[in-house]
Amino acid sequence: MADQEEVKLYGVWASPFSRRIELALKLKGVPFEYIEEDLSNKSPSLLKYNPVHKKIPVLVHNGKPVAESLVILEYIDETWKNNPILPLDPHERAMTRFWASFIDNKILAAAVKVVYSEGKEREVAILEVREHTKMLEQQLNGKDFFGGDKIGFVDIVGNVVALWLPINQEILGGEFFTPEKFPGLFEWIGKLQEIDLVNECRPPREKLLAYVKAIYESSKNAPK
Amino acid sequence: MADQEEVKLYGVWASPFSRRIELALKLKGVPFEYIEEDLSNKSPSLLKYNPVHKKIPVLVHNGKPVAESLVILEYIDETWKNNPILPLDPHERAMTRFWASFIDNKILAAAVKVVYSEGKEREVAILEVREHTKMLEQQLNGKDFFGGDKIGFVDIVGNVVALWLPINQEILGGEFFTPEKFPGLFEWIGKLQEIDLVNECRPPREKLLAYVKAIYESSKNAPK
Repeated sequence: MADQEEVKLYGVWASPFSRRIELALKLKGVPFEYIEEDLSNKSPSLLKYNPVHKKIPVLVHNGKPVAESLVILEYIDETWKNNPILPLDPHERAMTRFWASFIDNKILAAAVKVVYSEGKEREVAILEVREHTKMLEQQLNGKDFFGGDKIGFVDIVGNVVALWLPINQEILGGEFFTPEKFPGLFEWIGKLQEIDLVNECRPPREKLLAYVKAIYESSKNAPK
Repeated sequence: MADQEEVKLYGVWASPFSRRIELALKLKGVPFEYIEEDLSNKSPSLLKYNPVHKKIPVLVHNGKPVAESLVILEYIDETWKNNPILPLDPHERAMTRFWASFIDNKILAAAVKVVYSEGKEREVAILEVREHTKMLEQQLNGKDFFGGDKIGFVDIVGNVVALWLPINQEILGGEFFTPEKFPGLFEWIGKLQEIDLVNECRPPREKLLAYVKAIYESSKNAPK
């Protein structure tokens, strides 16, 4: 099968959404071509493959495009069945989908508000991120990974929390996201960092820090 | 198996999100107990079963809760495998998930803006609903249903478009959502109305009309 497969991923180096697709493909051992997009000058291919949202990531498998990162992850798990990233039990699958959606629609949505707000509004958004993140942490419940004893769907999606929250902590200061406040999540971050493929799929920390700082600057509400 | 099953659905009569769960269960022939929630005075059961979002719908199957309507629909399809509502092919499944998410995150999100805005802002939101709805219509592409020759996942999710857009058309007037502008979708609405179970899962039209009018009134931006 492998010889006939053509797998392309359109992404952006800093995007946690394309990075999670890259990680899933690597965990499955699927060879793919990565195409870096310039979002200020989107390629005709990206516009052709995702005419609805015009966003990365897009996975193109043998000419057929799939967009939206959570949809792509399900597609990958259904197409390449080795190393499953979703559990088999329907209720566990439902819980997995619930928490993956929670990370994107609650934690990340609140984190975006932190960047693009100021003063009191930013304080409220920070509390919101922390409250949601605490709910997520409780799901670990003594396990090494959200997926149990190995990395799974929620870990792949949640890798953004592992990477972006410490960077925001560094920029914002205070006690936004510290090991004292989130011991379970920091233990989980440690477990993730033991996985070579996870490290391979992370943007260089200093480069990402500069990138996130620039977003804060551009929001005109740079802290301090 | 049926004797041992206990299936409960917590919903609200007017909610398209709980109505879609009701429809899926009926299409599968799964007997269930329906519990109407009062959102102004949520039941201890709802708060217990969906402590994260505290929202309907919640499906409780043999004591185990599942929340978030798209997650519940996938759970239903994986648990009761007769009359599948998702296609089998991974790429078709991905397209199904993509469009279901599009209905909720694009069409409904814009429709909510229509209700809660006024003047120029409302006009822009109306254009947005129409543009998104046109994209959805194009997916029918000559088929009777989004699912092909029978009702499927996107039809179940999209039933909200079939029911709520005509009601908003009646309230807003103009050419918000007319058969002339959306011939494909109106043909599809006709096909849906031929299915008894679909009709069973719709709130009474006049009652829903009064309900939606009241939402417009409460938004203090009632048209005309």
